[in-house]
Amino acid sequence: MNKPFLIGVDLGGTNLKTALLDLDGKILEKIVVNTGKGKDIVLKQIVDVIENLLNKTGKKKSEITGIGIGTPGLVDSEKGIIRGLTNIKGFENVHMKEYVESTLDIPTSVDNDVNVMAYGELKCGAGKNAINIVCLTLGTGVGGGIIIDGKIYRGSSLSAGEIGHIPVNVDGPKCICGGRACLESYIGRDRIIKRTVEKLTHEKESIIPKLVGGDLKKVTPKVVYEAAAMGDMLAIEIWKETAQYLATALAGIINVLNPELIVIGGGVANAGKYLFDPLRNMTKERIFPFLAEKIQIVHAQLGEEAGIIGSAMMAKDSIIASSKSF
Amino acid sequence: MNKPFLIGVDLGGTNLKTALLDLDGKILEKIVVNTGKGKDIVLKQIVDVIENLLNKTGKKKSEITGIGIGTPGLVDSEKGIIRGLTNIKGFENVHMKEYVESTLDIPTSVDNDVNVMAYGELKCGAGKNAINIVCLTLGTGVGGGIIIDGKIYRGSSLSAGEIGHIPVNVDGPKCICGGRACLESYIGRDRIIKRTVEKLTHEKESIIPKLVGGDLKKVTPKVVYEAAAMGDMLAIEIWKETAQYLATALAGIINVLNPELIVIGGGVANAGKYLFDPLRNMTKERIFPFLAEKIQIVHAQLGEEAGIIGSAMMAKDSIIASSKSF
Repeated sequence: MNKPFLIGVDLGGTNLKTALLDLDGKILEKIVVNTGKGKDIVLKQIVDVIENLLNKTGKKKSEITGIGIGTPGLVDSEKGIIRGLTNIKGFENVHMKEYVESTLDIPTSVDNDVNVMAYGELKCGAGKNAINIVCLTLGTGVGGGIIIDGKIYRGSSLSAGEIGHIPVNVDGPKCICGGRACLESYIGRDRIIKRTVEKLTHEKESIIPKLVGGDLKKVTPKVVYEAAAMGDMLAIEIWKETAQYLATALAGIINVLNPELIVIGGGVANAGKYLFDPLRNMTKERIFPFLAEKIQIVHAQLGEEAGIIGSAMMAKDSIIASSKSF
Repeated sequence: MNKPFLIGVDLGGTNLKTALLDLDGKILEKIVVNTGKGKDIVLKQIVDVIENLLNKTGKKKSEITGIGIGTPGLVDSEKGIIRGLTNIKGFENVHMKEYVESTLDIPTSVDNDVNVMAYGELKCGAGKNAINIVCLTLGTGVGGGIIIDGKIYRGSSLSAGEIGHIPVNVDGPKCICGGRACLESYIGRDRIIKRTVEKLTHEKESIIPKLVGGDLKKVTPKVVYEAAAMGDMLAIEIWKETAQYLATALAGIINVLNPELIVIGGGVANAGKYLFDPLRNMTKERIFPFLAEKIQIVHAQLGEEAGIIGSAMMAKDSIIASSKSF
């Protein structure tokens, strides 16, 4: 018989979110703390928060099927090693799975945050009835996770899914990845802000300067969304442009991978219909007509809790699968 | 015990190639005839040629594990139905598998020609030790086949792999697929010719007009290759441009799918180093550095026989797998 509970951990640069869930991915209790500074502090913090969660809910370790940990950066999910994590100092080649398992004696899985989000949407969110899904997160960067045949597709060196680094032009701006004209270099958070500020120098009719009290350093995608919702034409145009870059990349993904579902999350996706309406139209214009009839492009459903739910569900499935193989 | 022979059929618009092979994909005897005109003629032709092949080699039907048929166009490989075939009149929704099996009483599989080529390269060609491979054919169009985990990846509506229809620019020429700025609309055979002829109107130094006796309607990719081999700068530049468009699409494929191998075949790929040298350099400049160290971009090995060998190997594996499931 399976143990009735899971623990999901969403390790971000700002917050460390931890929750107790049932085996269906329902959150029963959640603890959110600020992520500490430095590797050793964070490792201890994760273990402490999990123990607090067990005490608070009166659960025993023997009732937990597994712990799932999702984190940004490069993760070797087979070995449970975090290869690199830009937002937390010293997080290089950290044997996270080994550390947590040896300290708490509960089976643990570790994966990249976008893979985890994709898996959460597959099991408990927008992708419940799909088998081939491509997930994107739009934020500071553009992340991606690919589900093929109901499983995370990881590629030959465990680095598949880098949708932010699909070139959308033959030539274009240099990208932080070393490439050129990558999707992320047009629609990453800072590029949306930059395009907005540049447009504002030519176009004086926008409400955006008023919304930021005249300080254009305060422009954010949220402000551009709010302006669009007020009918601001410049803001609406920024979202259309963003949709056009994204549609270019999605058209390639859909024609090549032929998934039935595209799920888009992350803060920038909160622009809602100002992004999604032109995105759906522009993408469908660029793919095979018979695919345009079938493809669904939807907003992620799990929002802020995708990391917790996804990592817990991934822990459940990977741990149950590996225990069966013994 | 497996029956010791396979039959591979490569049904093209011009030629119908059929061969007897051993279970390792070695061709033992081959018959090539001109493809007939019209659906009924072609169906009868396929069966007749297979019977001729059996007579010629003295083999019995009971010695054949299976027949594999590869064909361009849209194929429902699960049901063995050819949905559409542009080069042969009346080839719509043809139940090829059913027809051949009921006529010859030998298990038959049918698949798209680029999937078949990819499978041939996986089993007997450039991809023998790989598990995640992306194959391209460069010809009139740009075709693609994707191998994931050692199996053809077909997607949710059996149409995955349309690499020719990855957009390589946000804006650009209208494509026959209905999309815009697709790879094929820059590097399909006719577009290579068109770019060459356009360049010749500005640049008078080229040897190409001499190679075609002054008649620019006779320019082909082969002529552009021959000119490049003679050191013609305009021709070399055409291959560099072609490489740049292709590198843009490949960079996206590699960053997203993280295969270990890219295999490129088709007539246009015969440009050899004039295409492959700039292609390898430009692709590696645009992908993550750790992937650039690992990815192999190679010329297909099976050439003209990829269709025969690939379809035979696919028949073998799919028929053995399905007989095991009984």
